[in-house]
Amino acid sequence: MPRSVITLTTDFGSADHFVGVMKGVILNINPEVQLVDLSHEVSSFNVLDGALTIGLNYGFFSKGSIHLAVVDPGVGSARRPIVARTASHTFVAPDNGVLSIVFERESGVEVRHITADRYFLHPVSSTFQGRDIFARVAGWLSLGIPAENFGHVIDDYVRIGIPRPRRLRNTTEASVIKIDKFGNLMTNLRREDLPECGSGEQAPFRIIINDREITRLANTFTDGTPLELFSYIGSSGFLEIAVNQGSAAQLLNASLGTAISVLIEGLNRATEAAST
Amino acid sequence: MPRSVITLTTDFGSADHFVGVMKGVILNINPEVQLVDLSHEVSSFNVLDGALTIGLNYGFFSKGSIHLAVVDPGVGSARRPIVARTASHTFVAPDNGVLSIVFERESGVEVRHITADRYFLHPVSSTFQGRDIFARVAGWLSLGIPAENFGHVIDDYVRIGIPRPRRLRNTTEASVIKIDKFGNLMTNLRREDLPECGSGEQAPFRIIINDREITRLANTFTDGTPLELFSYIGSSGFLEIAVNQGSAAQLLNASLGTAISVLIEGLNRATEAAST
Amino acid sequence: MPRSVITLTTDFGSADHFVGVMKGVILNINPEVQLVDLSHEVSSFNVLDGALTIGLNYGFFSKGSIHLAVVDPGVGSARRPIVARTASHTFVAPDNGVLSIVFERESGVEVRHITADRYFLHPVSSTFQGRDIFARVAGWLSLGIPAENFGHVIDDYVRIGIPRPRRLRNTTEASVIKIDKFGNLMTNLRREDLPECGSGEQAPFRIIINDREITRLANTFTDGTPLELFSYIGSSGFLEIAVNQGSAAQLLNASLGTAISVLIEGLNRATEAAST
Repeated sequence: MPRSVITLTTDFGSADHFVGVMKGVILNINPEVQLVDLSHEVSSFNVLDGALTIGLNYGFFSKGSIHLAVVDPGVGSARRPIVARTASHTFVAPDNGVLSIVFERESGVEVRHITADRYFLHPVSSTFQGRDIFARVAGWLSLGIPAENFGHVIDDYVRIGIPRPRRLRNTTEASVIKIDKFGNLMTNLRREDLPECGSGEQAPFRIIINDREITRLANTFTDGTPLELFSYIGSSGFLEIAVNQGSAAQLLNASLGTAISVLIEGLNRATEAAST
Repeated sequence: MPRSVITLTTDFGSADHFVGVMKGVILNINPEVQLVDLSHEVSSFNVLDGALTIGLNYGFFSKGSIHLAVVDPGVGSARRPIVARTASHTFVAPDNGVLSIVFERESGVEVRHITADRYFLHPVSSTFQGRDIFARVAGWLSLGIPAENFGHVIDDYVRIGIPRPRRLRNTTEASVIKIDKFGNLMTNLRREDLPECGSGEQAPFRIIINDREITRLANTFTDGTPLELFSYIGSSGFLEIAVNQGSAAQLLNASLGTAISVLIEGLNRATEAAST
Repeated sequence: MPRSVITLTTDFGSADHFVGVMKGVILNINPEVQLVDLSHEVSSFNVLDGALTIGLNYGFFSKGSIHLAVVDPGVGSARRPIVARTASHTFVAPDNGVLSIVFERESGVEVRHITADRYFLHPVSSTFQGRDIFARVAGWLSLGIPAENFGHVIDDYVRIGIPRPRRLRNTTEASVIKIDKFGNLMTNLRREDLPECGSGEQAPFRIIINDREITRLANTFTDGTPLELFSYIGSSGFLEIAVNQGSAAQLLNASLGTAISVLIEGLNRATEAAST
């Protein structure tokens, strides 16, 4: 039997003991498990950011992986802990929408309300259930305890709306949903949201963001001239905006949620659209 | 035999090669070991902060775990390297007090001065003994080399004083001992230091910190209204001060060591106490 | 067979999903592998910094280790992916000079251009080849797939110049090549570059950096008085400049590349040299 993989996605940061202690609790149950940090820098209390982090990336892990996603502004409240199972992956998380993208991408997800407190660490803290509930359940799951042991199936689990681009007449309104370490801006636009999209020197659309206009759809980072703004389809399948070897976030003064307009070429003038 | 766990606690940060190289040295000895970062963001050269990090958290790891605690402002000086063994855990650290909380919590700790330099990496650097001594000894211990092989028992090992709350007439003087990523303030007050402590809307005490007054003892983060200051018993068993989905450290301009007064209700007026 | 070790060195930071996803891709191929982060805080797009990080540290890992070094400003361009093999270690990296120090230190390195795209993750992204090419090749190598399967030997691989100290008449011109978390400055000076070098209170040379003069060559951090500037031979074998329990980078306003002059004592006056 290959070693189980448990991934961890949190907004705990890496400076404190939180993540290490969760790993200790897991290893106490299953010392053979393979632990992988997906990210601990999810924007604090930001369930959508957590949903994107786990939802866009779990697919790169092997079948049978277990994913802990603890972004939990409601820790200690009545929000439920859940375990969700797809054909290939198992997720342990608070029921606050952090698995929304998983629910959207997978069919036949079985979601259970975790109620079997014999698997918890007692007394259960009201402020660190990542340690006392989520890590414990992940550990037991990795040993082969079946999901049904933890609680009954529910179908009223929480889903949050992932911001979608909005198509107006000749404009698509979108937004920045992630900013990476390099300052590259991930938008919520997929290739199919860019209706006449080619690839080359002159894209058939203009992107307006904070009064700046971007007209290039590049294939790689090195296509552009230094400090030129350009767009490209990123490694997660979304349109991204970057500056060659610089930070687009800084240059454009953009942050999570910054609005983006995409203008279909020939029908609109960029300046007109930017002023609407 | 289950895989050995070695935890690492340092003030090395994660940007540099230091931690990775220590892991390389350990894996060179025992490639099967399970390595866990507890924290590498101990405040630089701060032995007390290191003592809190390892001392409050080693208990969550399985029996038989080995804990490296390298916060070592005296590296290269005459301070001794030590190995400390309790009934369930083994610690490898400089003899500068970084294990003080372990010594305080455990009875029958056996402490040895590490002198057997045949286990070291030679030549031993005078600036990176985490690599040349501590990681090596942890690696050998994880292979089953008994602690007695590394040196003789000592009983004059260093203990530093952990700041204790001081009870005056109607006031307890305490301080901030840890600040986490969310800006929550951990104090050195335990529940038993709050003599008439209940839990509910109105605590039988007032907490004064930087001229602000806190009167709520909450059960969870979500009890409070947004941006309300409140206190609660944190996951490590200490009283903590937080702001609902905000940073108490920022709001209160608090840092490590900031003084806190706890006033027993009905005997004192908060404003009087704050001005003493 | 002992567990394979794969180290990861990148400029991806630890906040994003990049490193976690690379690990997922590796574990998908070989769930038994031991993964170690060497550093993910290589200065962005800085091939020289990456070369120093991997080149000065791979030697601390066990024979048979595989090292991923993904600092890749040219991702998606025509730069080649390579696998390099020494007698004891295997490296997977872009062909941009990031392995220059390995090439310099090892004789008989065999370098191959990775062309066997049956080992890649398809479709290969033009922006995240760490995931689609490098992690995959490292995973397969760790399973024992021989290097020759990935492509043919090349000898025109890229080497970048590592800045060398320049010896003038009575002065050696050097520079800062690394700054660690503590603000210690690593220079490109080795002991042999300091011709009359002893160790003690008064070194037979003066170091001038940003108009400040350093005359002490210490053995350990604790030799100096608090806040005194001093130099010492660091754990990587290079001359470093530090302040006792403070940040030399801050005190000296030094950064990567800051110039350093070493004056051989008795022949020159420091002030004259500093003004040249």
